[in-house]
Amino acid sequence: MRKNFWFLVFLVFSGTLSAQTTISIEKFGVTKDEGQDATPAVRKALAYIRHQPVSRLIFPKGRYDFYPELASEKYVFTSNNDDGLKRIVFLLEGVSGLEIDGQGSEFFFHGYISPFVIEGSKNITLRRFSVDWERTFHSEGKILSVDKDGMDLQFSGQYPYKIDNGMLVFIDKKGVEYPYGNLLEFDPAKRETAFMARDQYFGRNLPAREIAPGQVRLLVPDLEGIPGNVIVFNALHRLCSAIAVSDSRGLRCDSLQIYHCGGMGIVAQRSRDIDIDHLTVTARPGSGRVLSLTADATHFANCSGRLRILHSLMENQMDDATNIHGIYVQVVRRLSATGVLVQLKHEQQVGFDFIQPGTRLELVRSTTLEAYDTLQVQRVERINKEYTSVEFTRALPAGLMIGKDVMADIADRPDVIIRHCTIQKNRARGLLIGSRGKVIIDSNYFHTPGAGILFEGDGRYWFEQTGVRDVTVKDNVFDNCNYGVWGNAAIQVGSGIEKEYQPASRYNRNIRILHNTFRVFDPRVIHAYSVQGLRFAGNTITESGDYPNRFPDGKRFTITDCSGVEVEEK
Amino acid sequence: MRKNFWFLVFLVFSGTLSAQTTISIEKFGVTKDEGQDATPAVRKALAYIRHQPVSRLIFPKGRYDFYPELASEKYVFTSNNDDGLKRIVFLLEGVSGLEIDGQGSEFFFHGYISPFVIEGSKNITLRRFSVDWERTFHSEGKILSVDKDGMDLQFSGQYPYKIDNGMLVFIDKKGVEYPYGNLLEFDPAKRETAFMARDQYFGRNLPAREIAPGQVRLLVPDLEGIPGNVIVFNALHRLCSAIAVSDSRGLRCDSLQIYHCGGMGIVAQRSRDIDIDHLTVTARPGSGRVLSLTADATHFANCSGRLRILHSLMENQMDDATNIHGIYVQVVRRLSATGVLVQLKHEQQVGFDFIQPGTRLELVRSTTLEAYDTLQVQRVERINKEYTSVEFTRALPAGLMIGKDVMADIADRPDVIIRHCTIQKNRARGLLIGSRGKVIIDSNYFHTPGAGILFEGDGRYWFEQTGVRDVTVKDNVFDNCNYGVWGNAAIQVGSGIEKEYQPASRYNRNIRILHNTFRVFDPRVIHAYSVQGLRFAGNTITESGDYPNRFPDGKRFTITDCSGVEVEEK
Repeated sequence: MRKNFWFLVFLVFSGTLSAQTTISIEKFGVTKDEGQDATPAVRKALAYIRHQPVSRLIFPKGRYDFYPELASEKYVFTSNNDDGLKRIVFLLEGVSGLEIDGQGSEFFFHGYISPFVIEGSKNITLRRFSVDWERTFHSEGKILSVDKDGMDLQFSGQYPYKIDNGMLVFIDKKGVEYPYGNLLEFDPAKRETAFMARDQYFGRNLPAREIAPGQVRLLVPDLEGIPGNVIVFNALHRLCSAIAVSDSRGLRCDSLQIYHCGGMGIVAQRSRDIDIDHLTVTARPGSGRVLSLTADATHFANCSGRLRILHSLMENQMDDATNIHGIYVQVVRRLSATGVLVQLKHEQQVGFDFIQPGTRLELVRSTTLEAYDTLQVQRVERINKEYTSVEFTRALPAGLMIGKDVMADIADRPDVIIRHCTIQKNRARGLLIGSRGKVIIDSNYFHTPGAGILFEGDGRYWFEQTGVRDVTVKDNVFDNCNYGVWGNAAIQVGSGIEKEYQPASRYNRNIRILHNTFRVFDPRVIHAYSVQGLRFAGNTITESGDYPNRFPDGKRFTITDCSGVEVEEK
Repeated sequence: MRKNFWFLVFLVFSGTLSAQTTISIEKFGVTKDEGQDATPAVRKALAYIRHQPVSRLIFPKGRYDFYPELASEKYVFTSNNDDGLKRIVFLLEGVSGLEIDGQGSEFFFHGYISPFVIEGSKNITLRRFSVDWERTFHSEGKILSVDKDGMDLQFSGQYPYKIDNGMLVFIDKKGVEYPYGNLLEFDPAKRETAFMARDQYFGRNLPAREIAPGQVRLLVPDLEGIPGNVIVFNALHRLCSAIAVSDSRGLRCDSLQIYHCGGMGIVAQRSRDIDIDHLTVTARPGSGRVLSLTADATHFANCSGRLRILHSLMENQMDDATNIHGIYVQVVRRLSATGVLVQLKHEQQVGFDFIQPGTRLELVRSTTLEAYDTLQVQRVERINKEYTSVEFTRALPAGLMIGKDVMADIADRPDVIIRHCTIQKNRARGLLIGSRGKVIIDSNYFHTPGAGILFEGDGRYWFEQTGVRDVTVKDNVFDNCNYGVWGNAAIQVGSGIEKEYQPASRYNRNIRILHNTFRVFDPRVIHAYSVQGLRFAGNTITESGDYPNRFPDGKRFTITDCSGVEVEEK
């Protein structure tokens, strides 16, 4: 009785506290619109919150600037990004129940800095702010002329550079370098990748000379591009994603604008229950830029629970709008009757520690991607960011193929809803769907240079576990997809299964494509193989004539090595 | 009584154990001379030792190979080296009382791997093994010809390369790259830096074309070099020192041969009681190499207690034989009446966390390097690898100069003995002596292209705290020092104090130079400023004529702004 009384007192008291738990960043010594470095204030605020009952941190509407000098630091491994010792503004570790509300503020970042890294946290909400950089990690040059020996480009003052030892090097005001990888041509009028443009060159400084202030001649033969179009020199590395989430539960991103970052917009790994609503990824209006951020708009590896992306615009980014998948490790050595050495093979997956005692792993042939056994983990020893030794509760199967078979967690399979989104004008594809949970993709608009929706996954190069089980694609508009080189149909199954193994595989299952509208300029609508259960019904297909038809003899449906296929054309 | 009895039983029992505590690496699955990767065996052995009473790990005499794939991993900050997430073979953390005895074995390392990282350990002995790499971090090319537009070089198969996009890139068998920094000319007959050779170029791939297999023309104008000499392309980074020790007590290195590593031979920081005996640093005999390791042979930052280097040969390395100093942080911001923000300014000093509650710091003018106050630390918050906020037990002095004054620990001052060593044929200087403890340098042989002994230290560029208090230099031979560009006398005080501040400073004190022999080819023997107490007596100076005398009008003694000077010439 007495116990209950004190418990009630506690409840009343904590209720009182929670009603007063909003705090303003101004309390920590920063004022909006003054150009000062707001990073130390965030540091202080997060330290304060750690020991006080604060549930909401607000930024009075205005501009805030963030610099790396006094930012927190942590070595961060984020799947499909580059690992490194990073400077981080909002480093949330083990935080529970916090909302950060920008109230419409603009957050400007400077240099190599990561806006949000959220690890081991619960119920975090981010809302109403924009993310941008003063100096982008990529650079954009307008094509003045092209000939067989080189290309003349015009750079605005947004993209400082120097010619160093005969090489074009991009820098910022402080002289910090911004190394570039692929070069890609964009059509600035359409704000999309130029028709059938492909990546040119990768990852070395290119020989160049300055022909006038802001004008550079690239001394590289056989470059392709149309004068008036824009060449984007993309960031070589993915070091500074805007929001990177690991091992957390309950993330809500509401009304965020991510105009730029040096990586992905929102990337989550080994996390569950993620809601994204009214996200805008776009090249900042009025900035003159054609590129928004330098990799995927969103990306999810080994996530589970609920995953929703609603009412969002994802455009102009250098890679897909989303990619939802698991991670395969390769079995590289047999250590005992029950133990193996496994390797994270892709260099942007290193440090992805998902194997724990008790984890159930599927054992998969990398040829067909079909699972042939399931093993439960007894003991794990992480050797380094690439290699882990794993001991199972029972003997390994006899047919284990060392250096070929791969393994992945079978429990991580979010239920996905992607609804009322606009997905367009980026490099590559729209949605890469690889969850084995229930997936609903409806009422979206797609205008992507590759496939609007791709079912990918492979065990030999990207090491991404996919293989859907229950997907409904309905009431979407696929408007002139495939105006670039990154696909061969509006909806495509492009798993990394070689032709000879496709008959033996049914890696993806139960895909229903219903009541969508396809506006096409070449015939290709569906390309699929190794699918069990593919239904196409109630869809409308119209010819747009908006781009050249380079495949007049192409087929609407290229469906091979599939079972349970029903295609009903109107 | 009963208690004492059991204590005696314990003593006897533990005595019995310690008599049986030698273990062989063979127990952990590796056999000498078989070329297999011995790294996992070391990992297992160190894990075993952690829970068993082992005091000695032996390697039966033979060859052992170590690869990075299955090595341990840790983010390591080592002073005056490059920080990074490193693969480490012998990672000793919190180990107490262990001897690793190679019994004359040869340890060969492959790729980006750190042989020994020892942190927070006590009484560690390393003995009787050599350290080398199959593919060195630097590359060496023999000069075939030189003209104003470029230089033709011949590379042996030891130094694989490719011409990538018109640029010379060094690689190994696996295609891993080895970026280069400075280029330096060596005389292969003398196995020393070429007379008055200086560093050329820094840190970018250079344009080149292959003119025949193994022959490359560097397309760089105005390169200097004599046909027949060797150009060393030094490693751009210092990532893989052979033995890196932090926060440890009691290190003994006995009879080690370090033929190569991608950094320093033995580097210790914040550690005490270090004995080095019969160390050999040299370009591996018979290898054809002119360079041994790519930075200093040994290096000590903020060490204390005993520091001895005896009976050692240190030659052919890319930087000094040793450098003993403390680290200055710069005061960059006043945070309160009692608190400041300090910064580790040099990029190879980041992560050097030496400030703890209770630490006594001297407050120093960066102009004169004179301390003007001492403060005791109350509280410390490390912000990131560069910045730390420090609160003191009392108010800051009024005259504190923000962005100029520096601070360093006053307690770290080892007593140094360097005796019976040969120090020669490297790039730069011999001994950089910056300890405030008692220093004895006797019975050594010096033949260095810069000063044999340098008293350096500064608060504006290298941020190295020195300022000796009690140094005896006796019975050494200085044989034709200063045949290169890195000094202006056999013994030199070169602290970073600008001319106008030298009269006001007595940064170094009590240097006695007694009974040494100086063989010189130009007149310069002593160059000193801002010293209190300098005695030169009983020394012999003879003219060698072994190199051209470029300073016929030079003076034997250039001693300015010093007090208590006694020079007795024989």
